[in-house]
Amino acid sequence: MHYIGIDLGGTNVAAGLVDKEGKLLGEASIPTPQGAGAVADAIVQAAQKVAENAGIAMTEVESVGLAVPGTFDPKMGLVYRAVNLGLENVPLGSMVGQRLDLPVVLENDANAAALGEFVAGAGRGHSSLVAVTLGTGVGAGAILDGKLYVGFNYAALEAGHMVIRRGGRQCNCGRKGCWEAYASATGLIASTKEAMARHPESALWEMAPSFDKVTGKTPFDAAQAGDRVAKNVVDEYVEDLACGLINLINILQPEIITVSGGVSKQGEALLAPVQAILDREEMTRSTANRTQIQVAQLGSEAGTIGAALVPLYR
Amino acid sequence: MHYIGIDLGGTNVAAGLVDKEGKLLGEASIPTPQGAGAVADAIVQAAQKVAENAGIAMTEVESVGLAVPGTFDPKMGLVYRAVNLGLENVPLGSMVGQRLDLPVVLENDANAAALGEFVAGAGRGHSSLVAVTLGTGVGAGAILDGKLYVGFNYAALEAGHMVIRRGGRQCNCGRKGCWEAYASATGLIASTKEAMARHPESALWEMAPSFDKVTGKTPFDAAQAGDRVAKNVVDEYVEDLACGLINLINILQPEIITVSGGVSKQGEALLAPVQAILDREEMTRSTANRTQIQVAQLGSEAGTIGAALVPLYR
Repeated sequence: MHYIGIDLGGTNVAAGLVDKEGKLLGEASIPTPQGAGAVADAIVQAAQKVAENAGIAMTEVESVGLAVPGTFDPKMGLVYRAVNLGLENVPLGSMVGQRLDLPVVLENDANAAALGEFVAGAGRGHSSLVAVTLGTGVGAGAILDGKLYVGFNYAALEAGHMVIRRGGRQCNCGRKGCWEAYASATGLIASTKEAMARHPESALWEMAPSFDKVTGKTPFDAAQAGDRVAKNVVDEYVEDLACGLINLINILQPEIITVSGGVSKQGEALLAPVQAILDREEMTRSTANRTQIQVAQLGSEAGTIGAALVPLYR
Repeated sequence: MHYIGIDLGGTNVAAGLVDKEGKLLGEASIPTPQGAGAVADAIVQAAQKVAENAGIAMTEVESVGLAVPGTFDPKMGLVYRAVNLGLENVPLGSMVGQRLDLPVVLENDANAAALGEFVAGAGRGHSSLVAVTLGTGVGAGAILDGKLYVGFNYAALEAGHMVIRRGGRQCNCGRKGCWEAYASATGLIASTKEAMARHPESALWEMAPSFDKVTGKTPFDAAQAGDRVAKNVVDEYVEDLACGLINLINILQPEIITVSGGVSKQGEALLAPVQAILDREEMTRSTANRTQIQVAQLGSEAGTIGAALVPLYR
């Protein structure tokens, strides 16, 4: 049997068609339009196009999984709110399902990406995985004991909104000191700018002559070039990232945690110092069975593959 | 069928015999002796005695569950280390199992207590529960999607060792700023003494004329009596407790979290201000399905009931 997964992004409606092992047999992508009806149309088109690209008839497709960047009611197939798509109270599940004559299942985009990585990426052969994405925010999803873990209300794994510095930086969620406020690319950029403001002599100013030129890569590049101020920014970032990862390990003890997103492209320059802190602080540091930390293997296809397989892992 | 649960404590070997719904049909308790052989003897005696007290023949007993205050290998039935009992590398499972001619299953004591509360306490009728104990440390156990959650290495739910104040108080685990360092009774007592040292005028000195008289109750009593210094200690304690609870909710979204241990006897004086913070900060604060916070319903029998039922919930 075959499964279609759709990753509803702010820029593109990306589709993938997979078999039950998560093998990607075809892909398709359509620019995301404005308006609920147009979005539903685009999903239908993307689904038809991906089946065509894969050479699979729609009658051989079991279901469509929709990865949604927002809040939704999975039972009703209702999108409560997806800010980046301008959707509010849209019954996307039934709108798409009726036209394709297929069951449509909604899932959170971070959970879908975690499931993709679990089935077809770094998680292959493991029983549990937590996938952490370091982007504008810090997203996370978990597969525990072989099943997608969503909590009793489908709202679990908001790990970015775990406070690690009580009373610290204001987070969009209303709390202060959330992991996301420090460990996201946004948090890293904020820390870099703070350091630049305090240190006009830093080589950070050569890498980024103005604040709008600062990216998550800037402090790593400047640290690599020997700038002490940048090195401090990176060291603090590593401490914050490791702090949240150890919290997740001490609580969930998954076999593997994957890290994705722009910052994860630093690879060993990021993971080696993180691992050194884990080796010092983790509860299970002196035992044989420890959680592995790895960079995610899949790119954006994690979302479509995972969305497709949601019905099999709930 | 019937199940025996044994809670191996530093003071007593407590036993309970239950049916598969967790109904307690008999109890027994024996002072904890010194030495591995003597501990095994005491467990065998407690098991025989509880069956006798319940009027159930050992042939009608399915298994024995052992709640262990330490680290162990569940597959081998081997206790690696239980500091309070002076045990190290003791094959307690087989020592007890051979003599009783019954399968013996080992479980962490916090997990066993969580399972007891889930089946026979505040968790009845729910699909998931996290049980938090505020004692010398902060212990936790979780039942997720109806099953005891232990992680891939049986080391999960060390929620007390989640850092909420990075760089804060030194914790025994090696980290700084752990939830346990603030939210345990030990943490509350430490905060109270710090406040007393800074404020010789505080009424805390009337409640506890010397440091060794300070308990977890002292700051609550003094705050109730109108002492401002004590009120600040309690307010900070409530903030720290709520901070960790919200982290757990945002990550796990269980249907219910129970709080037990000496400090939980404050009841609404503790939970009402905690709830006010939850209402302000939780990710799901504006949704219909929110995690409930309650004081645990069971006392020490949670451990024996839970230990007995471990084989049914793994």
